[in-house]
Amino acid sequence: VTDTWLSIPDASPFSVDNLPWGVFSGGGRGPRVGVAIGDHVLDLAGALDDDVFARPSLNAFMARGPAAWTRTREQIQDLLTGTSHHDIVVAQLSPIADATLHLPIEVADYVDFFSSIHHAENLGRIFRPGGEALSPNWRHLPAGYHGRAGTIVVSGTPIVRPSGQRQLAPAEPPTYGPSLRLDIEAEIGFIVGRGSTLGQPVPTDAFADHVFGVVVINDWSARDIQAWESAPLGPFLGKSFATSMSPWVVPLDALAGARVQPPAQDPPPLPYRPPFAGMYWTPAQQLAHLTANGASVRTGDVFASGTVSGLQRSEWGSLIELTENGVSSVKLADGSVRTFLDDGDTVAISASAPALHGGRLGFGEVTGTILPPFG
Amino acid sequence: VTDTWLSIPDASPFSVDNLPWGVFSGGGRGPRVGVAIGDHVLDLAGALDDDVFARPSLNAFMARGPAAWTRTREQIQDLLTGTSHHDIVVAQLSPIADATLHLPIEVADYVDFFSSIHHAENLGRIFRPGGEALSPNWRHLPAGYHGRAGTIVVSGTPIVRPSGQRQLAPAEPPTYGPSLRLDIEAEIGFIVGRGSTLGQPVPTDAFADHVFGVVVINDWSARDIQAWESAPLGPFLGKSFATSMSPWVVPLDALAGARVQPPAQDPPPLPYRPPFAGMYWTPAQQLAHLTANGASVRTGDVFASGTVSGLQRSEWGSLIELTENGVSSVKLADGSVRTFLDDGDTVAISASAPALHGGRLGFGEVTGTILPPFG
Repeated sequence: VTDTWLSIPDASPFSVDNLPWGVFSGGGRGPRVGVAIGDHVLDLAGALDDDVFARPSLNAFMARGPAAWTRTREQIQDLLTGTSHHDIVVAQLSPIADATLHLPIEVADYVDFFSSIHHAENLGRIFRPGGEALSPNWRHLPAGYHGRAGTIVVSGTPIVRPSGQRQLAPAEPPTYGPSLRLDIEAEIGFIVGRGSTLGQPVPTDAFADHVFGVVVINDWSARDIQAWESAPLGPFLGKSFATSMSPWVVPLDALAGARVQPPAQDPPPLPYRPPFAGMYWTPAQQLAHLTANGASVRTGDVFASGTVSGLQRSEWGSLIELTENGVSSVKLADGSVRTFLDDGDTVAISASAPALHGGRLGFGEVTGTILPPFG
Repeated sequence: VTDTWLSIPDASPFSVDNLPWGVFSGGGRGPRVGVAIGDHVLDLAGALDDDVFARPSLNAFMARGPAAWTRTREQIQDLLTGTSHHDIVVAQLSPIADATLHLPIEVADYVDFFSSIHHAENLGRIFRPGGEALSPNWRHLPAGYHGRAGTIVVSGTPIVRPSGQRQLAPAEPPTYGPSLRLDIEAEIGFIVGRGSTLGQPVPTDAFADHVFGVVVINDWSARDIQAWESAPLGPFLGKSFATSMSPWVVPLDALAGARVQPPAQDPPPLPYRPPFAGMYWTPAQQLAHLTANGASVRTGDVFASGTVSGLQRSEWGSLIELTENGVSSVKLADGSVRTFLDDGDTVAISASAPALHGGRLGFGEVTGTILPPFG
């Protein structure tokens, strides 16, 4: 772990080796860009004397591209490790606990993938018992769909239980009402900092030219609405009511120590995507696939992994898997049980990764509390 | 038709009763907002002395809401019908032929519906011969999916033929290469001018509080890529490479004379959406459905009708219908034939509607030329 003169609590996810980017307000000033360091946020417009950080989103800074991201990160690390800048830094620090954290980016397009083979097989077994767990295309491409960018909210935003059409019993006509099967999906999201050109695919080895950083996503899912609407056009209102994002964007550079070889892929990927831990499809393959038809990406695009589930039950990332679609239940720490979410439930999801210079990097939490339906 | 002192060619789609909004550049000045009148575009920042029009998109003006849209439209009609403002107007007119037309809005989210029962039945018969033409949910809700906002382009933008995975024969492994079944979808698009609140559905009778205007959309579709990828998450790369939009946004107010009762709907829609000529699902129902789960809309959102097909073959809006998925062919005016699109083909789609004070309103064209694949 890299040393700093600043006091950082031992349990802090935000070391000098992490320095996640975010947008905060407080102290009588509006939303602006900062980095988290220990229990504090460093105001970058002040510390670096650059107005690109005096804005309510990271987009303008992200658009500068990867050389600027790396250089700025090094400047901040210098400020925090060299003692000569002590006074400048201290003047721009404030406690995270006193700040309001905002959605760190203006979201352009949002794509959600479906790249955990364990999650896909778990769902296939639930919905197609006795049949093939995976659809015929699943091992050939990272399946995905476009989600609703305008309803991505920052961690802590309350989630109103969605209403919609759902079948209360098979073969019965649908009724309209609050979702009775409200679920979570624990995912990792990738944020595009620099866009690409329409008509020109982005190859897997250009991933770091475009991807700025990584967040934790909770892709709230109304399973009953989703089940009724999905054929033939895929998920729509069962997902579009809200997607929660953690407030701190972990830089791709900080994750150099977390890279692993992906699992063996059978059949081998087609040549347009030359070859994550346990996820079948890697984010580089997702980005390559997303642009393989010439579709461009923009500053502020988000693409998420899909539910991150492992082989073991303890590694499953959604209630639909953990409860076999509501057949069994999950016991919580307080002794209560759930099949799906109740009104008033608060869900918190976090993540961590190995750091390059030892220890672990944290992502901060993505949280949300379920409110009763509208009306 | 409302009279004006300005000379408007008889065949012009852009009468004083229309006044579609757009964004243009030319004469050494950057993109700014104008309205089309006959063969000319009126520079609104100059004519109305309002800087909201000195911007490269309609979004800031749209965000002002429907009272401002109607009041501004009346001001422009006054300028064009009263002779006292003749000099002001003439100074701000320039020929459309000399202008570059830009995408009129910054697109926020893009949703594409599937609301023509004739189109849905035609496709059902092609893909599920002998089975039910419509999916079980089709008559219960306006089926739709999120498309890619960042690849919506203005009419005239060349379309690079997309590459992707497709099966050249059933049960064979997919190969990667240029789409061999590139198609069009003739659609009408609706632009959200004023947003809504997250968690609160927009009822059908609030349509005019949110929808600013109407455009023509060509939802380019690579049928082979779409067919292989679609299960279970719906259309993705088969659609996301490009969607073309006409440059002139016809105001909802101009279409008061074009309103009709929708066809009878069986079963009756569920009560959350109290009850387009021939389109089974109306745009008001689409907007209500889109927000029924509490999802909010934003300034700049676009939602499109899906392919507009009528009962008669002459009214079908895609090549996949007109050629029975490539089994038959379409004869063009020059005597050549097509199943799907060839490189170099130019597609132009237009639309018109009855005007309130007689005659018809035009939408202008949406055009695109197919370029060979990248690489």
